[in-house]
Amino acid sequence: MNDAVPSNAHDAVEVILAKRDGGVLSDSQIDWVIDAYTRGAVAEEQMSALAMAILLNGMERREIARWTAAMIASGERMDFSSLSRPTADKHSTGGVGDKITLPLAPLVAACGVAVPQLSGRGLGHTGGTLDKLESIPGWRASLSNAEMLAQLDDVGAVICAAGDGLAPADKKLYALRDVTGTVEAIPLIASSIMSKKIAEGTGALVLDVKVGTGAFMKDLDRARELAATMVDLGTDAGVRTVALLTDMSTPLGLTAGNALEVAESVEVLAGGGPADVVELTLALAREMLRAAGVDDVDPADRLADGTAMDAWRRMIRAQGGDPEAALPVAREQHVVTAPADGELVRLDAMAVGLAAWRLGAGRARKEDAVQAGAGVQWHVRPGDAVTAGAPLLTLHTDEPARFERALAALEGGWEIGAVGTTPTAPLLIDRIAAD
Amino acid sequence: MNDAVPSNAHDAVEVILAKRDGGVLSDSQIDWVIDAYTRGAVAEEQMSALAMAILLNGMERREIARWTAAMIASGERMDFSSLSRPTADKHSTGGVGDKITLPLAPLVAACGVAVPQLSGRGLGHTGGTLDKLESIPGWRASLSNAEMLAQLDDVGAVICAAGDGLAPADKKLYALRDVTGTVEAIPLIASSIMSKKIAEGTGALVLDVKVGTGAFMKDLDRARELAATMVDLGTDAGVRTVALLTDMSTPLGLTAGNALEVAESVEVLAGGGPADVVELTLALAREMLRAAGVDDVDPADRLADGTAMDAWRRMIRAQGGDPEAALPVAREQHVVTAPADGELVRLDAMAVGLAAWRLGAGRARKEDAVQAGAGVQWHVRPGDAVTAGAPLLTLHTDEPARFERALAALEGGWEIGAVGTTPTAPLLIDRIAAD
Repeated sequence: MNDAVPSNAHDAVEVILAKRDGGVLSDSQIDWVIDAYTRGAVAEEQMSALAMAILLNGMERREIARWTAAMIASGERMDFSSLSRPTADKHSTGGVGDKITLPLAPLVAACGVAVPQLSGRGLGHTGGTLDKLESIPGWRASLSNAEMLAQLDDVGAVICAAGDGLAPADKKLYALRDVTGTVEAIPLIASSIMSKKIAEGTGALVLDVKVGTGAFMKDLDRARELAATMVDLGTDAGVRTVALLTDMSTPLGLTAGNALEVAESVEVLAGGGPADVVELTLALAREMLRAAGVDDVDPADRLADGTAMDAWRRMIRAQGGDPEAALPVAREQHVVTAPADGELVRLDAMAVGLAAWRLGAGRARKEDAVQAGAGVQWHVRPGDAVTAGAPLLTLHTDEPARFERALAALEGGWEIGAVGTTPTAPLLIDRIAAD
Repeated sequence: MNDAVPSNAHDAVEVILAKRDGGVLSDSQIDWVIDAYTRGAVAEEQMSALAMAILLNGMERREIARWTAAMIASGERMDFSSLSRPTADKHSTGGVGDKITLPLAPLVAACGVAVPQLSGRGLGHTGGTLDKLESIPGWRASLSNAEMLAQLDDVGAVICAAGDGLAPADKKLYALRDVTGTVEAIPLIASSIMSKKIAEGTGALVLDVKVGTGAFMKDLDRARELAATMVDLGTDAGVRTVALLTDMSTPLGLTAGNALEVAESVEVLAGGGPADVVELTLALAREMLRAAGVDDVDPADRLADGTAMDAWRRMIRAQGGDPEAALPVAREQHVVTAPADGELVRLDAMAVGLAAWRLGAGRARKEDAVQAGAGVQWHVRPGDAVTAGAPLLTLHTDEPARFERALAALEGGWEIGAVGTTPTAPLLIDRIAAD
């Protein structure tokens, strides 16, 4: 061996060949390739070949843990140990109408657990939490680490954009996977999510892994594998982690859009709102409290007594938003009415998500703007009775030219049937905790 | 479908996903991705992900044929139909001491078949035909298409560098595969070789597919699969194609290096030379003549009567070289002597190839220069008797500092044993023709 070359030096082709030929990458290979990729010493085309080899040949639990650790080590780590309260965070793999973070963060804060929620923007058919909150006049997504810590100490909940310093290797790799057909690798999905959540410094983490037509994972077995992989990663890194598998074949609540979902979240915080949104919010809140070691508070009480709403208002105000201001409304509406009497037997999450996206609620490229008021509202949920001629769906947009493609997306996405024929599907499918 | 988008428009991710998920690429997908990659509309990182998916998931015969056709269509095609003689070419997958092209091209020309040989330079442990010929004072590798045609008409043989116009998609893809661990995919190897040979316009083609430690293919089954794939591709494209599988566990002849191999080739053309080089040269010449439809000439006669040597001299002079000039000799020599009496029972092609490379005969990067005089000479071949203290190997280089690493490469690469114990291995292993 050449003395001038440190023993941990590797070569990109060597690492690619090891995974391509079905081998297990060594700790040293993983550390080297992530660091060298972050520095630009491993080229994009080399990392994409490696990502494809990982997608097709898989990774062992030990490799995924090291890969995640190397991505965390590529950037800064946050530390909330100075807070007087325990911390808990939630991550959803993304769904349609999934506004749960909005009522959940203030609710859990009202129960005495701090929620440091670093969120993202929407891409494709699923909305982004930051996009939704930005429909509130004045609200800003960017906070410094010091502002975030101060708000957690004061309000107990913060929902803001992840800074550039957290897991920069993941940021670079995610953009690459997106254009190279390598998004769907469970080791890469799990390490991407968990590197950010572990670097964020939360003490406990609840994962909402969606399954169904509107979810990233259409298949229950793969969703379960992803959930178990992430629970393992969190547990191995000292974060108390639990995952719920939840249904995403039907969209959540009664709205998909930015301001539309804020309004629905406020209804939940006011003690009302759609039953499924309340059910999932409470289930996730209970898991977060339990993982944070708080077992003497029932979050349902905090919705009922208004303290969750108080925490919401303080959280919004702390980030410059006016919780009392009127929310933006789209300039144009188009109503779809029920063609017959009966029951809504199916409403497809993907169809609704695509329609909301096409109406302007989402973006195709990350530099696109979104419309605050755009989206889809459904007036009934599967199992509800409908009358011929009554409103079924209302489409909202500022640009009426968008209605046509949104309506095309909804084509075949809902079905009216005979009363009593709606198949029942539980919202909460399974719970996966550390073994 | 949007009317503004032509029906043959695809998306890089769509093509990657199709192959990643084990599908068969359509003609339209293949045509689009090769064209878009050549134009830069498909990024390097997208093509490397696709190459890895092809390596791991394979391609059907029909896909490989279309992929090859698309690479040919990315550039110009040559046409030798104006020649009064039939054309035949030879391609070797690369070995150590493989100087066969040098005596073969003038020999076949002397038999009445024109040889339009587009060659490459060496990379790694195998030498390049152009590097070898460039050790002849004055000889130049670059010819225009018109010069090439004129020389084929006049001399009947040309060995020159492939122009940039031939299969530019392959040139770009080959450089990418080299740095992304995607070299070893049979569909990509076969289409890379055959796209250039078909575009070159030869009427017949003989493939010398090497198998063994010093070859790209270590394994007989994979070599056979590569040979059959290339024979199919040539046949489907109207080129009469046949492949010989030949041994490359022992290096060919008695030398590996540039000027050293030219000298050995001239010996063969003079009617002498090592028996294995003569055997393989004649076998390949007979296949080329048969594929070109010439069956009334025995190439052994053309070696014996000096007409092959005449063709060699005219071929070298036509490209500015002086066939009578003294060849360069390395400044330093190091002799390895036999440690005991007995028989050379093994000489490993890879060990010799690496040693010659480290002595300066080859290059690590394509922009490196090579030494004309550097290389390895072995004074006995497996099966030959040796006497303790007699020269076994002579190492040649201009830089004596290179001896140490070359000797390290040879460590364990040869073996002296009892007389009569050398395993016999045929040079010609198999012949694969169109089915």
